[in-house]
Amino acid sequence: MITREIQIRVRYKETDAMGIVHHSNYVNYYEVARTEMLREFGTSYKTLEEEGVMMPVLEVNMRYFSPARYDDLLTVRITLAELPTARMTFEHEIYNQEGTLINKGQVMLAFMNRETRRACRAPKWFVELLAPYFH
Amino acid sequence: MITREIQIRVRYKETDAMGIVHHSNYVNYYEVARTEMLREFGTSYKTLEEEGVMMPVLEVNMRYFSPARYDDLLTVRITLAELPTARMTFEHEIYNQEGTLINKGQVMLAFMNRETRRACRAPKWFVELLAPYFH
Amino acid sequence: MITREIQIRVRYKETDAMGIVHHSNYVNYYEVARTEMLREFGTSYKTLEEEGVMMPVLEVNMRYFSPARYDDLLTVRITLAELPTARMTFEHEIYNQEGTLINKGQVMLAFMNRETRRACRAPKWFVELLAPYFH
Amino acid sequence: MITREIQIRVRYKETDAMGIVHHSNYVNYYEVARTEMLREFGTSYKTLEEEGVMMPVLEVNMRYFSPARYDDLLTVRITLAELPTARMTFEHEIYNQEGTLINKGQVMLAFMNRETRRACRAPKWFVELLAPYFH
Repeated sequence: MITREIQIRVRYKETDAMGIVHHSNYVNYYEVARTEMLREFGTSYKTLEEEGVMMPVLEVNMRYFSPARYDDLLTVRITLAELPTARMTFEHEIYNQEGTLINKGQVMLAFMNRETRRACRAPKWFVELLAPYFH
Repeated sequence: MITREIQIRVRYKETDAMGIVHHSNYVNYYEVARTEMLREFGTSYKTLEEEGVMMPVLEVNMRYFSPARYDDLLTVRITLAELPTARMTFEHEIYNQEGTLINKGQVMLAFMNRETRRACRAPKWFVELLAPYFH
Repeated sequence: MITREIQIRVRYKETDAMGIVHHSNYVNYYEVARTEMLREFGTSYKTLEEEGVMMPVLEVNMRYFSPARYDDLLTVRITLAELPTARMTFEHEIYNQEGTLINKGQVMLAFMNRETRRACRAPKWFVELLAPYFH
Repeated sequence: MITREIQIRVRYKETDAMGIVHHSNYVNYYEVARTEMLREFGTSYKTLEEEGVMMPVLEVNMRYFSPARYDDLLTVRITLAELPTARMTFEHEIYNQEGTLINKGQVMLAFMNRETRRACRAPKWFVELLAPYFH
């Protein structure tokens, strides 16, 4: 199991007329956290695409407990519970600067061959990079 | 049970570097469908806010079956299965112009008093407006 | 000179914590208007891309006179003042449902070969399609 | 004159089907830079709003020289050339990680009383906070 924490500052653009962060932005925060998590392992989602693999989203589940507001400094705690196979699932918890859990969500992605646009398995080099963290 | 269909044209802005609609946009399509559904019943979400009620999102669950692309003409079939109480849950199915189901999702919203920012029940006038459709 | 009018309903997602449409959304409204204008001429921006031409944005100038709000029904009046050459410039005026001019802006785009990613001239067939409107 | 530099990592969500950052996102990068510039002076846009002042955008002018891509680490160089009066104008230059100037833009904002929603002058305390940097 791998867990990392990433900080994100709420942008004005992300707020809505309720004065809070619009609910559609949380998936973007999750995505930023995935990007930064992969970077820490010495690779990147950009590298995956360059190596011919894309990762479309298959499923998103989110629960909202408390609003976030403009300029809040959020912490996204992201967890990869299992080694990727044909799919890869991330868990995300978002905390505000008071340490309150405001949102929780799960994203399941597929691996897809960039040329054929068909589903494929996670590249071997990628699985080997993550494997040491699962012992 | 109430079901309505709304059409949405995919904007270039909603695509991403995979050449498909970014997964964060589907909640916005759902939101457009909710807005138009309420309008058909002779009210609007805007009216609800003017009457002192806001509707923050509590939960979102989405599944992606097939990508949408720029300029696709999508049909969002939105269903309200139960009369609102303290919560209101909408089901959404999105079809492309070939009639393929490409996405399916559920959004649960709460009713909140705009002044006190506390949870409340659906306004009586609002429930009465929808009630005839549940007989 | 070609002028067309397109209607756009403001989405909740497009509002911000000031309770008005966030200023970044107007370029997206312009883009929707460009898409619909081209469709009226029997082609589409999608067709242009399929024919190997992309149109990156070179310049945007916008002035904001009055705010737009959630659920406003906006009219975008879009004008193409000159036949495209290596560039294509659109003028946009946005009116709210009271007929007030709330925003005005200009977007200049380039033509780019999709393969080489180099600047090119507007395709001949495309210029011929628009030419009759400039006599 | 005040100049500061802020770094922004391009999000996947900000790319479009051309494989580059969609042109509407640059105003958001400018906005992030304004937020961080104010923070450095010991205040924040959030504080301004709490003190009863909002800053709607009056004018945006942008020029695009070169595309940005997913995961690029951009540097926004933001400049405030004059002390604010009833208006406040920021200049922005965006560089990619190779040091290439890819975008340049100007944003003019107004000061508005949050209650009355009428134009006002910059708060005295705010001007005094910035004044030392203009000597």
